[in-house]
Amino acid sequence: MTTRAEITEQIVVARLAKGLTWQQLADAIGKPVVWTTAALLGQHPIPPEHGKTLVEMLGLDESAVPVLAGVPMRGGLPTAVPTDPTIYRFYEALQVYGGAIKELIHEQFGDGIMSAITFSVSVDKKPHPAGDRVVVTFDGKFLPYDWTAAEG
Amino acid sequence: MTTRAEITEQIVVARLAKGLTWQQLADAIGKPVVWTTAALLGQHPIPPEHGKTLVEMLGLDESAVPVLAGVPMRGGLPTAVPTDPTIYRFYEALQVYGGAIKELIHEQFGDGIMSAITFSVSVDKKPHPAGDRVVVTFDGKFLPYDWTAAEG
Amino acid sequence: MTTRAEITEQIVVARLAKGLTWQQLADAIGKPVVWTTAALLGQHPIPPEHGKTLVEMLGLDESAVPVLAGVPMRGGLPTAVPTDPTIYRFYEALQVYGGAIKELIHEQFGDGIMSAITFSVSVDKKPHPAGDRVVVTFDGKFLPYDWTAAEG
Amino acid sequence: MTTRAEITEQIVVARLAKGLTWQQLADAIGKPVVWTTAALLGQHPIPPEHGKTLVEMLGLDESAVPVLAGVPMRGGLPTAVPTDPTIYRFYEALQVYGGAIKELIHEQFGDGIMSAITFSVSVDKKPHPAGDRVVVTFDGKFLPYDWTAAEG
Amino acid sequence: MTTRAEITEQIVVARLAKGLTWQQLADAIGKPVVWTTAALLGQHPIPPEHGKTLVEMLGLDESAVPVLAGVPMRGGLPTAVPTDPTIYRFYEALQVYGGAIKELIHEQFGDGIMSAITFSVSVDKKPHPAGDRVVVTFDGKFLPYDWTAAEG
Amino acid sequence: MTTRAEITEQIVVARLAKGLTWQQLADAIGKPVVWTTAALLGQHPIPPEHGKTLVEMLGLDESAVPVLAGVPMRGGLPTAVPTDPTIYRFYEALQVYGGAIKELIHEQFGDGIMSAITFSVSVDKKPHPAGDRVVVTFDGKFLPYDWTAAEG
Amino acid sequence: MTTRAEITEQIVVARLAKGLTWQQLADAIGKPVVWTTAALLGQHPIPPEHGKTLVEMLGLDESAVPVLAGVPMRGGLPTAVPTDPTIYRFYEALQVYGGAIKELIHEQFGDGIMSAITFSVSVDKKPHPAGDRVVVTFDGKFLPYDWTAAEG
Amino acid sequence: MTTRAEITEQIVVARLAKGLTWQQLADAIGKPVVWTTAALLGQHPIPPEHGKTLVEMLGLDESAVPVLAGVPMRGGLPTAVPTDPTIYRFYEALQVYGGAIKELIHEQFGDGIMSAITFSVSVDKKPHPAGDRVVVTFDGKFLPYDWTAAEG
Amino acid sequence: MTTRAEITEQIVVARLAKGLTWQQLADAIGKPVVWTTAALLGQHPIPPEHGKTLVEMLGLDESAVPVLAGVPMRGGLPTAVPTDPTIYRFYEALQVYGGAIKELIHEQFGDGIMSAITFSVSVDKKPHPAGDRVVVTFDGKFLPYDWTAAEG
Amino acid sequence: MTTRAEITEQIVVARLAKGLTWQQLADAIGKPVVWTTAALLGQHPIPPEHGKTLVEMLGLDESAVPVLAGVPMRGGLPTAVPTDPTIYRFYEALQVYGGAIKELIHEQFGDGIMSAITFSVSVDKKPHPAGDRVVVTFDGKFLPYDWTAAEG
Repeated sequence: MTTRAEITEQIVVARLAKGLTWQQLADAIGKPVVWTTAALLGQHPIPPEHGKTLVEMLGLDESAVPVLAGVPMRGGLPTAVPTDPTIYRFYEALQVYGGAIKELIHEQFGDGIMSAITFSVSVDKKPHPAGDRVVVTFDGKFLPYDWTAAEG
Repeated sequence: MTTRAEITEQIVVARLAKGLTWQQLADAIGKPVVWTTAALLGQHPIPPEHGKTLVEMLGLDESAVPVLAGVPMRGGLPTAVPTDPTIYRFYEALQVYGGAIKELIHEQFGDGIMSAITFSVSVDKKPHPAGDRVVVTFDGKFLPYDWTAAEG
Repeated sequence: MTTRAEITEQIVVARLAKGLTWQQLADAIGKPVVWTTAALLGQHPIPPEHGKTLVEMLGLDESAVPVLAGVPMRGGLPTAVPTDPTIYRFYEALQVYGGAIKELIHEQFGDGIMSAITFSVSVDKKPHPAGDRVVVTFDGKFLPYDWTAAEG
Repeated sequence: MTTRAEITEQIVVARLAKGLTWQQLADAIGKPVVWTTAALLGQHPIPPEHGKTLVEMLGLDESAVPVLAGVPMRGGLPTAVPTDPTIYRFYEALQVYGGAIKELIHEQFGDGIMSAITFSVSVDKKPHPAGDRVVVTFDGKFLPYDWTAAEG
Repeated sequence: MTTRAEITEQIVVARLAKGLTWQQLADAIGKPVVWTTAALLGQHPIPPEHGKTLVEMLGLDESAVPVLAGVPMRGGLPTAVPTDPTIYRFYEALQVYGGAIKELIHEQFGDGIMSAITFSVSVDKKPHPAGDRVVVTFDGKFLPYDWTAAEG
Repeated sequence: MTTRAEITEQIVVARLAKGLTWQQLADAIGKPVVWTTAALLGQHPIPPEHGKTLVEMLGLDESAVPVLAGVPMRGGLPTAVPTDPTIYRFYEALQVYGGAIKELIHEQFGDGIMSAITFSVSVDKKPHPAGDRVVVTFDGKFLPYDWTAAEG
Repeated sequence: MTTRAEITEQIVVARLAKGLTWQQLADAIGKPVVWTTAALLGQHPIPPEHGKTLVEMLGLDESAVPVLAGVPMRGGLPTAVPTDPTIYRFYEALQVYGGAIKELIHEQFGDGIMSAITFSVSVDKKPHPAGDRVVVTFDGKFLPYDWTAAEG
Repeated sequence: MTTRAEITEQIVVARLAKGLTWQQLADAIGKPVVWTTAALLGQHPIPPEHGKTLVEMLGLDESAVPVLAGVPMRGGLPTAVPTDPTIYRFYEALQVYGGAIKELIHEQFGDGIMSAITFSVSVDKKPHPAGDRVVVTFDGKFLPYDWTAAEG
Repeated sequence: MTTRAEITEQIVVARLAKGLTWQQLADAIGKPVVWTTAALLGQHPIPPEHGKTLVEMLGLDESAVPVLAGVPMRGGLPTAVPTDPTIYRFYEALQVYGGAIKELIHEQFGDGIMSAITFSVSVDKKPHPAGDRVVVTFDGKFLPYDWTAAEG
Repeated sequence: MTTRAEITEQIVVARLAKGLTWQQLADAIGKPVVWTTAALLGQHPIPPEHGKTLVEMLGLDESAVPVLAGVPMRGGLPTAVPTDPTIYRFYEALQVYGGAIKELIHEQFGDGIMSAITFSVSVDKKPHPAGDRVVVTFDGKFLPYDWTAAEG
């Protein structure tokens, strides 16, 4: 029996061995590429019909399909503070701009948060005379602090 | 003598006492609001001409101006993993989507990073039938890993 | 100028010195007692009209009112793992039952979370032949993972 | 020889492969579903008569039965601060409301704690016009601080 | 206004300055000496009638009495792993014998814990030919894991 | 070649599979039960003559005998702060009473420590009208701070 | 399927078994030796044409080539604070001189950073009458804090 | 009485208020600028004759002179992993290149370390067509592991 | 009222201001210099007759005498892993040689420890042709693991 | 292929199984026993001629010889703060005496450190009327802080 964590390791290696892009994998199941990549990296459940397609493309054992369909224990960083430079820059941006983002969400919307559940992320390549830019958009529903309880 | 950290604490309280918005403070110096807020929260040096304006608006002592103009020791989160829910959601997004963002930066641009220095952030309120959305955009120059050395 | 953290310390001492209950403070502003206590402990903004009432009851300086009305940097535990036994038991329940709660939320609702923002908590005293029981109810809206983006 | 931790990993995968719900497993042994799920996730001993039933349903090796019947080393979170969003929300609620819950337990009951041993948890789905709610109830006997010693 | 933590610091210094023993302080209020010492070190509420006696003996300000009477935020070690050698030995004993103590509680009593609430500690000096011994007794009610809920 | 840590894991499983109590294992070698349990959990060397008896009773490979006889790298808790509730209560008692125990050792004995080496622990079941009690006794020689050096 | 981490372990052992120097491996692919060593230790992707050469020299399985060509999860220290003395000295230099380096970068260049991406490192042996010296040069492009955004 | 840490804080603010550069301070005492800056930031003792000059230039109290002349408790980073981006890049370089630097020191010099005591650092601005570069040179005596003991 | 920690800070500054050596302070009270230094740095109680002498020499307030005579909360390093290079080298020696020292204590003495209580330390300067050496001797009584209990 | 860490584990078990002392292993290669033990525990490279002897005595595979000859990643403690009592006492001595040792090195030698590289350790058994003593001597060359740079 193979755990989700082991399947994730297999996916990482198999994708490189097969020479597949994340975009190709996403296109094969008709899902956004950030979502698909996150899911294949163990952060989202993958519905069986998509799981079958992906498992086949990657040459994994079919027994992985129901495991991929289970809701995973999320949280993909190996350390609390990320050490990989590409990921660290986002953590650094939080250190430098996190307080300001918080203040401005409150100023523009009131007390509450950006949902990370009713949420999407996009990664885009945008031109600039001084060199292409990575534009990552975090887009979540505003949730105001709302003290309510179930009925009855 | 008052340290930058103490001046930041004073700014937080004085802004509330004076009833000023971050936007008003930013407008007064003609700078983007995320930048201004981050700077006032101790994350950027504030040029003396702007420092004077802000110190006056907030009713702080003028001796704060040169301290605000110094490059600060950056890093504004009180703990390695943020505990404030509004800020935490961004950390959570990194936990869930950080690996995927990394992979897609590499797939779209090659090996390298999004700069957090040649960089800007915006916080926007955008409509959606199911409720307004917080859209936070991290926009940084792509920097390819580039093994170069100074001349001579 | 007094920071929110300092005002919280003053509130803790002043309430004891004045012999006021949290319930009396909550009743005075007509708000739920858990909300009021959390707010006075520095976890929620307190609207100025309520802030005035509370500041007066507690004998604090009126300059605290606008500071109490600001959205605070939340997160009230002094250490990542709580050391106070009364609070620790909830952390322990998470260690022992957290995995099970996660699985059952997914089984009953699908993939998603209990919101901690559209949320309320109650603390009740309930009878039992073997001794009174503390019943703490965490009641949050179910939020399904929902990959949506702002319009336009 | 297979350790309890390895058996837990097998249970997680086998349940998904067999398509069984936690509720079905709980019903098969006539125990509350939160208790059963926690036990299968390695947090409670499972009496042999129930262990046999469960091991059979899940297709595990019978040698797991006595290991499941042993009192486990409890504590199910892989990190001190949980990274999974569904579990994290409860940790966040502790950060925001833990101090208030402590104060109100003391105000309503006196000095003491909610037991996490004479204790039960329930997870319920309750209706609300704005969307279904997750209601998680922590229900523990109040234990007053009581300085007593064994006799003799 | 003086916080409980500041009062604890004052007690530590004042006791030394006045040349009082913990036993004398305990005798003055007719309470066990371990309890009294822990309470004066900030770990238990001290009823006002005792608080008055102690505050007077130690020469503290009377305003400390209601603060001492409040239930404190418990947890008296400055670091998660104690550095003081006298306290560390108990932590070390837990590292070496904690697993064995757990197993034997389960073997003798079944699944459950020693309560740290219905609990007392004693520190005794006992003779031995090879030198006096420190005998510290942890004495707590056995609490079996008991899945019960409030009525109704 | 099997390490001591692997042998400990085997012992934990084998004891459950064989249905042996720790007391039976201790009786078989004529040693105190806390000592025997700690030793089998990897905290003490086990002399070969006893190692042979235990290895046979547990059905382990005889090659374990010399490894059990080696002085182990001690320290049996998987995390610095224990997560298992039965063990945590002792850590909590240290948090709440550790400072008081230290003060009283100094008051009764002078400056020094309770040895954790010239030391024994017992776990006893004692009656009480309100329910049986777990009485754990830490009994160590008092060691005064003593500034001496080797001769010559 | 073998992960990048496992391949790194194989490289470390295989190089010693084959008696190859890092310089020889670097020369074989015509790349700087610091870059090559870092890449073989899992910190850079290795283009397939170089990967083939290296895998052959080291006697690894050819299936390692595409895995070596993938962008790795970077971050090569096993602990946040390095324990190896040779590496620790650089961490110590950061502790002692990091603040000064920061101040002088700002004094000489203005507000910004030394890039660790447009970057190279060299390790040189230089003579000195009192003994040879290790000279490690960190050479990165200066990046001024620059608040720009993508076009359009 | 003012501690070294407090004097360091005063120096940071006073230098900004007086508009002095680190280079001017270094020139005034005829010492290298990295050494001087590190010393003023609390990392080296400052001989009294230099201390007097610096204290006068910065307008501090003369009582600081002997405190500056004492060997300080070194270690200038507020957290184990630095959060300031300018300093972090050096930590990141250690994460990515630390293993390679270690291997090459061993390959070029044998087993040993670069001394961080018989050591100097320089920060230079060097030209490059693609933009100026920060060149930081760590230059320490090679110390081979050498098992020797004092005589007699 | 001044705490022991504050008195330690005063001692550090006052000694430098008065130009006294630790040896002079030790000689004044006729105690070993390592002991005296450790005591003045807050690690040992100082008997009142010696406390008076030292307080006078250092020009502190006489009220410090009874506080210095109290047994302190020991543990003098500001972080778990020391950052000061002079102290760190001892920690590094533990990392590199700690396992070997443990094995050889067991080989030469049997199972047990070097006492850190019946213990002394000396710091000596010894000659060597290649340069003077620091010789630090840790000298503690061997304590065999000895399972004994108090009588009766 | 077997890593150095795996070989270290094999050595620990094989030595016990063969009944060899560390002294016998050291004598066989004519090296000091502390050095030999540390090397076999993974902290020093072992020259091939000695590696062959040791591998043969311990019955390991000959392929271990070149791996043992490589400079290892040093740092032998499994946790930052050691949990094994025998090793912990040295850490405790650092906590209690580390500050004093630092001060006295500076008082006797000036600003600098004891080298842990030009260094040796000895473990000796010395007599004392009150019981044998463990005498551990750390003997390192004094290195004064010396700001020098490579020539040219």
